[in-house]
Amino acid sequence: MSQPILFNFPKVLPLGQHLQEKLNAEEGRFILHPFPDGESYLRIESNVKGREILINASLFHPNSWILDLLFLVDTLRALGAKRIRLIAPYLSYMRQDKVFQNGEALTSKTFSHLLSAYFDALVTVDPHLHRYHCLSEIYTIPTTVLQAAPLISKWIHENVENPFLIGPDEESRQWVQQVAGDLPFIVLKKERNSQGHVNITWPSFEGAEGKTPVFVDDIISSGGTMLLAIEQAKAQGLKPPVIVTIHPIFANDSYKKLQAAGILKIVTCNSISHPSNEIDLVPLIVSALSA
Amino acid sequence: MSQPILFNFPKVLPLGQHLQEKLNAEEGRFILHPFPDGESYLRIESNVKGREILINASLFHPNSWILDLLFLVDTLRALGAKRIRLIAPYLSYMRQDKVFQNGEALTSKTFSHLLSAYFDALVTVDPHLHRYHCLSEIYTIPTTVLQAAPLISKWIHENVENPFLIGPDEESRQWVQQVAGDLPFIVLKKERNSQGHVNITWPSFEGAEGKTPVFVDDIISSGGTMLLAIEQAKAQGLKPPVIVTIHPIFANDSYKKLQAAGILKIVTCNSISHPSNEIDLVPLIVSALSA
Repeated sequence: MSQPILFNFPKVLPLGQHLQEKLNAEEGRFILHPFPDGESYLRIESNVKGREILINASLFHPNSWILDLLFLVDTLRALGAKRIRLIAPYLSYMRQDKVFQNGEALTSKTFSHLLSAYFDALVTVDPHLHRYHCLSEIYTIPTTVLQAAPLISKWIHENVENPFLIGPDEESRQWVQQVAGDLPFIVLKKERNSQGHVNITWPSFEGAEGKTPVFVDDIISSGGTMLLAIEQAKAQGLKPPVIVTIHPIFANDSYKKLQAAGILKIVTCNSISHPSNEIDLVPLIVSALSA
Repeated sequence: MSQPILFNFPKVLPLGQHLQEKLNAEEGRFILHPFPDGESYLRIESNVKGREILINASLFHPNSWILDLLFLVDTLRALGAKRIRLIAPYLSYMRQDKVFQNGEALTSKTFSHLLSAYFDALVTVDPHLHRYHCLSEIYTIPTTVLQAAPLISKWIHENVENPFLIGPDEESRQWVQQVAGDLPFIVLKKERNSQGHVNITWPSFEGAEGKTPVFVDDIISSGGTMLLAIEQAKAQGLKPPVIVTIHPIFANDSYKKLQAAGILKIVTCNSISHPSNEIDLVPLIVSALSA
């Protein structure tokens, strides 16, 4: 691959600078600011004609700047960029993957169609594939799905004594299973009763004595399920757990609540910039782009 | 036309309710709220299958909710809506109509292509056509352009004694000329010197004695040109002016500044909801949609 130009969007993220160095990419320079009437002004300063373009975009909270991202892509095309690939370490709008109630927006589809109409390809890390089996069900562009499991597995082996892995609900099974390798793991079962109250049931398990529980999930958003699972682990006399998640959304005050729940540590990947970031996704992304 | 369903977006605007009554349209009902992770949830409650849909959208400050608008349109299509027309009394992103400096985003084009990809038709009032001559240069869907001039002209005749119309710069000529009809008018000339300082020159004119100056422009955003023109009008001994504009953007504190500038009154059309709204665009829009 000829030297690509990497644009970090919407702003320079720590992951972005690191990614640029490791990819030996040229920095994509652009100016973006609002006019007094609230509309955006954007100008690309790099010479992009005929060049390979990578846009490393945080798709976390995408509503307010999706239009700016489309302006960036359209302008790159107008300036003669060759191929424009989106790197989205966290791919948003994957969770509304079914019309649960008549009339609901299938936002996963609108969002994927929109990105597919603007980008030539997508690289992402562990998208929340639950009812969809692969991204090609909703994305019409080539997609590369990277898995953080080997990195998380390595981190656990290096940092946790006697780990015992726990998936807090059935949706987490695919991730905890991959991360576990030959480590022991269990998966809890979450049920919602008719009042909307969440109940968690534990499978029978043994061999956890003296081990460190490690809760693994792909996303922590409101953190409700995780908090309940931690509480129940404590009630069962398990040691203070380690919490590992790929995408640290931590909506509202969920991070604070988790920290206060008597845990050993919370560790996350840097798909979303957060103080808990400790597992670096850059090598994963670089290896995929260099292949 | 069979009875249409009118959706007001992003919220119920006074113009919207009024529009619904005058069009004898059914109210389009939908729920829109954010999830804790910042993503949108949308659900359409109306039965839209096979129906004519009108979406009356405020395109003022569109960045933060453009995605929600696309979710709405996509969901209407998924539910079998027949034709989806956008009513945008104020059409944004018309002002960046030229690449002034190499690398600049031609946001007018990206925005128009995006709307063209989702809607079947567009109805708008006095879009800021400056370097573009008509909307079909950038919109690929049928567009209906309505003109507020007759309504403004009527308002001036009914409310201003001895009006003398003034366009604050050359861009305003098309509007002041239309509004004037057989009333006297002049158009000022705005020039920017090399330091970016704005200078306004007045043409020689006569017959303004005792008359009420009425400044007319399509948009007031930062209000800088208008404030300078008002100041100069006062310096020339003209009476306190009336200010009329179609689209009251009034960025930052420009409305306050204009009110404090020794004027008689500021009057606007209700394309954007604002306390100064006094000229109702609903009859104009209704007549276009009933034709």
